[in-house]
Amino acid sequence: MIYLTRRATFSASHYYWNEHWTAEKNVEVFGRCARRNGHGHNYTLEVTVAGEPDPVTGFVVDLKWLKDVIEREVMAAYDHRHLNLEAPEFAMANPTTENIAIAAWKRLHPAIEAAGSGACLSRVRVYETPEIFAEFRGEA
Amino acid sequence: MIYLTRRATFSASHYYWNEHWTAEKNVEVFGRCARRNGHGHNYTLEVTVAGEPDPVTGFVVDLKWLKDVIEREVMAAYDHRHLNLEAPEFAMANPTTENIAIAAWKRLHPAIEAAGSGACLSRVRVYETPEIFAEFRGEA
Amino acid sequence: MIYLTRRATFSASHYYWNEHWTAEKNVEVFGRCARRNGHGHNYTLEVTVAGEPDPVTGFVVDLKWLKDVIEREVMAAYDHRHLNLEAPEFAMANPTTENIAIAAWKRLHPAIEAAGSGACLSRVRVYETPEIFAEFRGEA
Amino acid sequence: MIYLTRRATFSASHYYWNEHWTAEKNVEVFGRCARRNGHGHNYTLEVTVAGEPDPVTGFVVDLKWLKDVIEREVMAAYDHRHLNLEAPEFAMANPTTENIAIAAWKRLHPAIEAAGSGACLSRVRVYETPEIFAEFRGEA
Amino acid sequence: MIYLTRRATFSASHYYWNEHWTAEKNVEVFGRCARRNGHGHNYTLEVTVAGEPDPVTGFVVDLKWLKDVIEREVMAAYDHRHLNLEAPEFAMANPTTENIAIAAWKRLHPAIEAAGSGACLSRVRVYETPEIFAEFRGEA
Amino acid sequence: MIYLTRRATFSASHYYWNEHWTAEKNVEVFGRCARRNGHGHNYTLEVTVAGEPDPVTGFVVDLKWLKDVIEREVMAAYDHRHLNLEAPEFAMANPTTENIAIAAWKRLHPAIEAAGSGACLSRVRVYETPEIFAEFRGEA
Repeated sequence: MIYLTRRATFSASHYYWNEHWTAEKNVEVFGRCARRNGHGHNYTLEVTVAGEPDPVTGFVVDLKWLKDVIEREVMAAYDHRHLNLEAPEFAMANPTTENIAIAAWKRLHPAIEAAGSGACLSRVRVYETPEIFAEFRGEA
Repeated sequence: MIYLTRRATFSASHYYWNEHWTAEKNVEVFGRCARRNGHGHNYTLEVTVAGEPDPVTGFVVDLKWLKDVIEREVMAAYDHRHLNLEAPEFAMANPTTENIAIAAWKRLHPAIEAAGSGACLSRVRVYETPEIFAEFRGEA
Repeated sequence: MIYLTRRATFSASHYYWNEHWTAEKNVEVFGRCARRNGHGHNYTLEVTVAGEPDPVTGFVVDLKWLKDVIEREVMAAYDHRHLNLEAPEFAMANPTTENIAIAAWKRLHPAIEAAGSGACLSRVRVYETPEIFAEFRGEA
Repeated sequence: MIYLTRRATFSASHYYWNEHWTAEKNVEVFGRCARRNGHGHNYTLEVTVAGEPDPVTGFVVDLKWLKDVIEREVMAAYDHRHLNLEAPEFAMANPTTENIAIAAWKRLHPAIEAAGSGACLSRVRVYETPEIFAEFRGEA
Repeated sequence: MIYLTRRATFSASHYYWNEHWTAEKNVEVFGRCARRNGHGHNYTLEVTVAGEPDPVTGFVVDLKWLKDVIEREVMAAYDHRHLNLEAPEFAMANPTTENIAIAAWKRLHPAIEAAGSGACLSRVRVYETPEIFAEFRGEA
Repeated sequence: MIYLTRRATFSASHYYWNEHWTAEKNVEVFGRCARRNGHGHNYTLEVTVAGEPDPVTGFVVDLKWLKDVIEREVMAAYDHRHLNLEAPEFAMANPTTENIAIAAWKRLHPAIEAAGSGACLSRVRVYETPEIFAEFRGEA
């Protein structure tokens, strides 16, 4: 069993806000992240698949294929976008690093399963900055 | 003569747009950066001052003082902000990496000169991503 | 289940020495690390908590709170300090990367448990240099 | 239980090719990697051992010893070498990141077991570039 | 005057050899780099242009255009190639970091001049590893 | 003219103190850096030489030779040492990043000049952390 990881980066805006709270409460909880014009990050996404290397190619999966999947399923929806305003999964939920990791998993998992390559999605890690990152492994 | 540099980071949103152009022309020139909701980056700012180390302290400038200057003059205006909407210097000019480097110089230069420490601002470098950076040295 | 990580850095001195050995034996085993004046590193600490994102905030824990916990429990005791001379846990045990990882866990664990947030400490990783790091997961 | 990791780097050439395929098929599957002159990378190898810190030294293993093991078992065979042409394990199998991780494990495992230190090899990770890495944990 | 830099990476093989020397002399001078199968690196290329930001766009040059120039003039010739065997400028001269920096300048300079953008090539820097880099500024 | 740079790292302890000041004044000026047990850093040293590549080798200088010079002139004196207590140039002057850059220049310059290679020392840069660095170019 090999764990093969590919990194990709995307630049996006976001803010944190709860519509059921007053503005004061939002600022108290979310601080500078509550500013409604948004701010942004260079996010780094790490996608890890697990499987056996094919004895002929030596590949767990073709990394060009994996790059295309990431591009189509995540980058097209998040890169150079305002996550709150343009990604439907964040219309009602804050695009925290934690929630982005789960959402990226949900976007990637069906495409990787559908490929029938024998490799499965093992881990998604999202860095908001080099100091903050969240990881989802598909565990309930 | 020693060149002493301090790095700081800020997270901000921006977009590129020219009000005198059609939407089509904006997209043609600015591509994904023309999306009006904005997107964002973890910017890195490098501020370099030049001077002689003080024989008593060994400091060109006190780095805590320099950090405070950067915080007050640049971070307070740019960090966790939408540059087009919240920084007045970008109301009419695109917040490109080039223009941010010039604007940060203009914000820092008076404060560093006013300190009368004998050290002068030598260089401002701004990284938009690890792959793209702009540098201004105060040259006409 | 999401694993959320925050990084922090501290600058500290240390040396390796065993009082029950001769100086020769100490040098033989510990090499340059046995020099008693000490030497130092920019350590990087990664603290990982595991839990469910809160449905309202999208947070596993509030990262500002986690930063404060790290500051109070670890940074105040280790940053800009000589670990052998100033941190009581290293009065009798060498401040190796391994032991620092365990000690940081012991400092952080009660504070994170006491918060009652539902998130638990999952992993502590300490980098002595970019080439050397140790990880403790609370396993016996 | 502590997981202690040491990084090392090596510079090597490789290409991907299957002797049983036509040149066209090789290019179709392997793209630019099929060019027979080879191309190269600065690989980063991370070797993780797991064990208890020795109560006297504070070491899971002596990092100088681990560095020597990595040097003797992996670096001598891979660094400044053409993997396809000079490492026997890649005479018949492509030196993909996945296969290099498995091969490095097979080279390191006997030497670490033979040391009888009580620490065992836990993980080998190989970065081909900062964007691509493979990890092997000895799992069937 | 602003200095705007774009980074790109390429993976290539090379070796050092002087046809007029004996094999012994080549090994004595070039060490492991004299192995004729070659070895490789992930090179990082930094291309810096200098000019005034356009008052309308805020660009010194369009970074998409600069990326295309780098791709066409350097990447196509060096990436996933064996520099000694496939790049004509290294048929007779060793592809040292120094010589690659000069060669990349010679490849980029005419294309940047021909664009007539008012910006000029200011600096080319090539990293062979994070520890070794060479810079050429067009100085005789 | 090519500028060729080699990086090296060293781990050292230091503190800042002025014997002619009271303890209160030292703490007021130097803050946490005034703690007399010292603290430490992983310093990165960048040494840049300038010259013409030799037409036969393609080298400005032999990087193995440069590494040996750095090892002998700087690393032996600073690595795994307490700078205040063990490096004579810091017996009376604080080992600030600025002063370390000047001191490293003074250590390296005679050895590089004496080599008669035609290359000269162009720049010394010292990183105390990734956020703070000082550069000396031999300018009065």
